[in-house]
Amino acid sequence: MAAWQLVSADDHVIEPPDLWQRRVPKKFCDVAPKVVIRDGEEHWEFGGQVRAYPAWYGCVAGRSDGYPKTFAEVRPALYDSQERLRDMDADGVDVQVLFPNAAGLGGQALLAIKDLEARWACIRAYNDYVAREFCAANPQRLVPQCIIPLWDGQAAAREVLRAATLGHRGVVFSGQPQGLGLPHFNDAYWDPLWDAAQDTGMPVNLHIGSGGHPGLEVWHDYTAAEALAFVSVKNLSSNIAVIGNLLYSGVLERFPQLKFISVESGIGWVPYLLELADHQYRQQRLQGEGRLKLPPSQYFRRQVFVSTWFEHFGLEARDFIGLGNILWECDYPHPTGTFPNTRRFVERSFAGVPEDARHKVLVENPTALFHLA
Amino acid sequence: MAAWQLVSADDHVIEPPDLWQRRVPKKFCDVAPKVVIRDGEEHWEFGGQVRAYPAWYGCVAGRSDGYPKTFAEVRPALYDSQERLRDMDADGVDVQVLFPNAAGLGGQALLAIKDLEARWACIRAYNDYVAREFCAANPQRLVPQCIIPLWDGQAAAREVLRAATLGHRGVVFSGQPQGLGLPHFNDAYWDPLWDAAQDTGMPVNLHIGSGGHPGLEVWHDYTAAEALAFVSVKNLSSNIAVIGNLLYSGVLERFPQLKFISVESGIGWVPYLLELADHQYRQQRLQGEGRLKLPPSQYFRRQVFVSTWFEHFGLEARDFIGLGNILWECDYPHPTGTFPNTRRFVERSFAGVPEDARHKVLVENPTALFHLA
Repeated sequence: MAAWQLVSADDHVIEPPDLWQRRVPKKFCDVAPKVVIRDGEEHWEFGGQVRAYPAWYGCVAGRSDGYPKTFAEVRPALYDSQERLRDMDADGVDVQVLFPNAAGLGGQALLAIKDLEARWACIRAYNDYVAREFCAANPQRLVPQCIIPLWDGQAAAREVLRAATLGHRGVVFSGQPQGLGLPHFNDAYWDPLWDAAQDTGMPVNLHIGSGGHPGLEVWHDYTAAEALAFVSVKNLSSNIAVIGNLLYSGVLERFPQLKFISVESGIGWVPYLLELADHQYRQQRLQGEGRLKLPPSQYFRRQVFVSTWFEHFGLEARDFIGLGNILWECDYPHPTGTFPNTRRFVERSFAGVPEDARHKVLVENPTALFHLA
Repeated sequence: MAAWQLVSADDHVIEPPDLWQRRVPKKFCDVAPKVVIRDGEEHWEFGGQVRAYPAWYGCVAGRSDGYPKTFAEVRPALYDSQERLRDMDADGVDVQVLFPNAAGLGGQALLAIKDLEARWACIRAYNDYVAREFCAANPQRLVPQCIIPLWDGQAAAREVLRAATLGHRGVVFSGQPQGLGLPHFNDAYWDPLWDAAQDTGMPVNLHIGSGGHPGLEVWHDYTAAEALAFVSVKNLSSNIAVIGNLLYSGVLERFPQLKFISVESGIGWVPYLLELADHQYRQQRLQGEGRLKLPPSQYFRRQVFVSTWFEHFGLEARDFIGLGNILWECDYPHPTGTFPNTRRFVERSFAGVPEDARHKVLVENPTALFHLA
């Protein structure tokens, strides 16, 4: 760890087609996720529903010719962890913090399975697979984040405790559970989950695209590449409202050791959000209310983390954001990610950033937050 | 004008209850907007539908005890322009650029009137009232922005030309007409409107709250003040996706002299959006596509404006944003606005900004953009 140079706080496990079929009791195999072929392309089927999204859509690392249509075309490093470590070595990345892919960036895709017992089994299967199988190749360098039963705060708390014993180092949640038909993020319903995360020292990840409102309609006439570019802008920036809500929610006041991460949303918006949230806090005289003892910016700097990969100006704003609140990510193997040019991206982003500040973002902050090494 | 110190690019006409009833042909009076009493509070009725929102909800300038329940309680300066000029003098504001209030921040509230002839009459009545009546008290200091028939690109173009002759200096549009059941913002359907705005030199205003998706659900347990604070964060930041779409749309390529303003969204997010939009432009190899000849950031700096009032860090980022792209606003008489402490807000925001840069944002940029004085 002393020699680590790049710890990435957001990468993805690509679930192999047999992950769930191999791991859940036979009686659940019908509704458990499987891969099916439609018009020559593989798609995931969850709870008997074939998803419109192609199965390997985001699996573009190392390709310049679009996404793979079948698992046979997927780069082995996406699902084979020995190969993954070789890609990391080639790209200079020491550690990857691992999120789901097919299971949803907040684990929400499994909600399509109606039978709760089967759904539960699929969640445990994912968490077991990632911790015991994928990351077992090198648990210091491959760091799993657990998914949870999103529909039940108490059960979620129990799975967090179980996952901690398996080696998971963080919790995957949704910034907008209310957008998934569940209680609002701010509801006391989630207190058992916050308690469990705080007690185990596991940060709660609010990854973009983890459920919620679709936002601005994508123009029908955009090319596929233009649509992907625009959707990235839309999805990344949608987390600003999620974190704005978190700052006003009272959760950070009630759980002062709990940490949240705004994953894959960049960092350059943070000064704007903090100035805006503090301004509205003063304009609406919330100092006098019981819920928030501090201005929103102080909760942010105490308990919220953000991650960057494409920004230079964002890093120039590091002191206003809070140097200790910034993580770096390379989002392997997704389209916005930096593989195989990660070193070049890092040099450009961090140009002019002193070595100690750079090391804090690239190594020290994530090491402390995820309790690595 | 030589002596002007503060030109505000976003303030509001508060439409008096008789505006439409007095100005539209008698046969349209039934569906034209009027004010009705419900449970002791006045509400606007548009097209025979009583709006849930109280009529004078945002009319809080100079009050510390909530919003007025009836027009009789509304501060006269909100609807009487001689009084308005006195408030401006007291607060140090030389010029206000005037947007609708009841008619919708994009003029979209009038869409509730089903009869198109009546709706048209109401739009003309608003534009006539603002230019000929409210702003007539001092057309150099009170600068009207016209509303348009949102449902018809050709008719919108004609109303822009008519409004220009009345003295209007900008166009009120929606950043998400597709959210109002109309063609997508990017569609060629709107080309006649872009042509008319470009020909008359009128900038197109995309005010927050001018229609579109509701975004993240507001927690039921927020107090009214907390909800207002959070909704501000959500609505302001929602314009980032609107401007992201504008940058990819091709409209700025096809209409290189056309100017757009992101109104009441602040400025601190701009470096983030430009870094993100350029990154995705490169990742998706859009350089090779026909629609965009330039990276998104270059279109922004050539044709897009943003306005600030609560930000200090935002202004520190002025060179990256583009000093020539920044306006200032005081949003009279709305809850986020700075009246009657505008001078104090300006001093705090602009602390450390050299006099020439300050004068550019506060006077020169809006003077050139709106063709003032």
